[in-house]
Amino acid sequence: MNNDTICALATAPGGAIGIIRISGSQTFEILSHIFDKDLSQTKPNTIHYGHIGNLDEVLVSVFRAPHSYTGEDSAEISCHGSRYILNKVLESLVTNGCRMANPGEYTMRAYLNGKMDLSQAEAVADLIASTNAATHQLAMSQLRGGFSSELSKLREQLLKLTSLLELELDFSDHEDLEFADRTELLSLAKEIDNRVTNLAQSFKAGQALKQGIPVAIVGKTNVGKSTLLNQLVDDERAIVSDIHGTTRDTIEEVMEINGVQFRFIDTAGIRNTQDEVEQIGIERTIQKIKEARIIVWLLDQQPSQDEIEEMDSLSKGKRRIYVHNKADQVDMKTFAPYILPLSMISAKTGQGIDNLKRRIFEEAEHAGLTTNANDIIVTNARHYESLTLAHESLLRVIDGLHHQLSGDLLSEDLRLTLNHLADITGGQITPQETLNQIFSTFCVGK
Amino acid sequence: MNNDTICALATAPGGAIGIIRISGSQTFEILSHIFDKDLSQTKPNTIHYGHIGNLDEVLVSVFRAPHSYTGEDSAEISCHGSRYILNKVLESLVTNGCRMANPGEYTMRAYLNGKMDLSQAEAVADLIASTNAATHQLAMSQLRGGFSSELSKLREQLLKLTSLLELELDFSDHEDLEFADRTELLSLAKEIDNRVTNLAQSFKAGQALKQGIPVAIVGKTNVGKSTLLNQLVDDERAIVSDIHGTTRDTIEEVMEINGVQFRFIDTAGIRNTQDEVEQIGIERTIQKIKEARIIVWLLDQQPSQDEIEEMDSLSKGKRRIYVHNKADQVDMKTFAPYILPLSMISAKTGQGIDNLKRRIFEEAEHAGLTTNANDIIVTNARHYESLTLAHESLLRVIDGLHHQLSGDLLSEDLRLTLNHLADITGGQITPQETLNQIFSTFCVGK
Repeated sequence: MNNDTICALATAPGGAIGIIRISGSQTFEILSHIFDKDLSQTKPNTIHYGHIGNLDEVLVSVFRAPHSYTGEDSAEISCHGSRYILNKVLESLVTNGCRMANPGEYTMRAYLNGKMDLSQAEAVADLIASTNAATHQLAMSQLRGGFSSELSKLREQLLKLTSLLELELDFSDHEDLEFADRTELLSLAKEIDNRVTNLAQSFKAGQALKQGIPVAIVGKTNVGKSTLLNQLVDDERAIVSDIHGTTRDTIEEVMEINGVQFRFIDTAGIRNTQDEVEQIGIERTIQKIKEARIIVWLLDQQPSQDEIEEMDSLSKGKRRIYVHNKADQVDMKTFAPYILPLSMISAKTGQGIDNLKRRIFEEAEHAGLTTNANDIIVTNARHYESLTLAHESLLRVIDGLHHQLSGDLLSEDLRLTLNHLADITGGQITPQETLNQIFSTFCVGK
Repeated sequence: MNNDTICALATAPGGAIGIIRISGSQTFEILSHIFDKDLSQTKPNTIHYGHIGNLDEVLVSVFRAPHSYTGEDSAEISCHGSRYILNKVLESLVTNGCRMANPGEYTMRAYLNGKMDLSQAEAVADLIASTNAATHQLAMSQLRGGFSSELSKLREQLLKLTSLLELELDFSDHEDLEFADRTELLSLAKEIDNRVTNLAQSFKAGQALKQGIPVAIVGKTNVGKSTLLNQLVDDERAIVSDIHGTTRDTIEEVMEINGVQFRFIDTAGIRNTQDEVEQIGIERTIQKIKEARIIVWLLDQQPSQDEIEEMDSLSKGKRRIYVHNKADQVDMKTFAPYILPLSMISAKTGQGIDNLKRRIFEEAEHAGLTTNANDIIVTNARHYESLTLAHESLLRVIDGLHHQLSGDLLSEDLRLTLNHLADITGGQITPQETLNQIFSTFCVGK
């Protein structure tokens, strides 16, 4: 572990104020060279007004080990948000012995100093990146240790399984005991694997929640797909800019319904064609339909039997919503009843759009893609990988139990399972390269 | 004055942390509804860890009236820098009785509560906007009251002038006293006006410093103007991005030399032409030369006598630098000595560029466009206007003194002069519209 004192800008450049963080044993020694108040005897968690040379009037917040975010002595300098000032303050900190922090280095230190486990540390980055209620809730639950305590329960069960196996070894002379034990062991192993598998499987939902649940809008050219997309997105964009008061980097196709992010995919029409260019568009559409979890099929007239069959085969296993656009112009009676329920909208006037949003959300709920506060959803690819590896070694344990392998032959795979799960929270010694990789995705200053 | 409690995001969105500011008498009452720690009895200038519902783990800094930036009870919530979280915290503050702050409203309150005068308040916005040593120094000196104390000296001298005039009125029966008094009065009035005029005249330098001292690069097509511009700017851009670690909104033509900002203007060639389009380009060039304070004339051969005369008439009163480009290719002996000193550069290889920068800075120094720490430079158009009005009324006082007008006829103009100067610091009652106009240019959160 690196013990030097680090500094970084913790806020984005451009605001009214900017916060510079310092952490490490030399924090107050270094500050004494640039700040005109003596902080060496100040109480922790106090704020001090003063000057940094002729550069700025600032407030310095004092935190003392171990009661700080990193667990080390640390301080925050609240400066006027001028880039010139912030750069100069950082420069003078570096001149006096600070090192510029790497991305995520504060949180890495918090982990290394036992302030949080690794999955909680990773949740910090997710929390900062969260843009809606669903991703926020997942990150917050992980930060507060929901996932960690679930893993700790699994660990307890695995240790129980291990000790039962050891018990079996101790009594291996009593052949009549074995059968009962094996049944219990098998059922316990399956129970653990079941939970591990569920967690691993939640990763797909977690990814959808993080990136937006993919919804493909399909239908023939001119049926109003783009107008519908604009209706869905424009509406949302107005709300968003109302609240933020700032421009955001808009991804046109993303919007929220009930705090869950959806990613709407506009597609080209699908029909048989000899036109090569059109054929490429159709292949892309088919690819997009495959990626989507929900299909919104926009219609302005009864689809042909061929079209229905093609759609059936394309959207197998996905949630489908039939939508009758141009409800203000086209008579609903032209639709055969067998594709009901049919949502009636007018993409042009906005009629029925709110109902359609509700339908989309309900379909996502039915597909298990939304969460409630008690769900634990895996959103991190590293965790998914560890869970998958834990599942694989558990399968070998279960297989071994089926084949009456002896306990000492199973123990290696049990140990592997425990290690894979421990990797998630960093409970065992995590190699520095792994830590570097994890924290490199953080922003600087955190 | 508005007494409601205001809140705003004080940092730019997108960093590791975001700071939300609250100020007003209801600060702690409102916070008690959303923060899980009781802050009502906490000491001022202390920091408290806790939760905002299920939304975030935060630190709350407590400030108490009158020892806060605004002079009111206030608090800062340090959140994780997620836009979702920051919006939700602001929402819940508003739900519980806060109002979203207007731009500059914190600083306006600081002014209204006597924490700083108006010119110091304006310096806060300048400080935040400062991008280099020169603009930073001007703002910092104004914030620390350099300009205010200069104005207060002028005010004292004006009051002395007024009382001397009153003394004269008291002794108006003694005609023999008058002559001596008038001489003294006139010299005092001229001394004051001299200082007021100097301050007003510093505005041009102040504007140049704020926007960058304009430097026109002129010369014939293909002489290497754009290459030179790129050399000057590219070099600087590399340094800037090195320090910032972030992309800035680059204005290609702006760069700093010794902490002073220069604005380089690339121009079309100047020569007589019948081509209409080219003529427009030349007229623009002439306009740009007029705006510039420094002319860099790039040459690759001896200019003709006509060209020299044209340049003489165009750049009258401006600092001029003759530069011999393509120093690696063209023999210097082809230049007549009378346009020396001649800077030798190669825009292509970068040879001589550092020397040229030094020359440009020296010319700006000679033109009085750079500052040293003791200079007071007016950078604010509102201050310039007030100084100009003060100068005009002072001229009427001086004129009246010359024409032996009686003291009671002069007192109105003296009073006006005092008022115009008082407008700058807001010493007299400033109308709300003026305040609104001043603070509307601030960023929200300051």
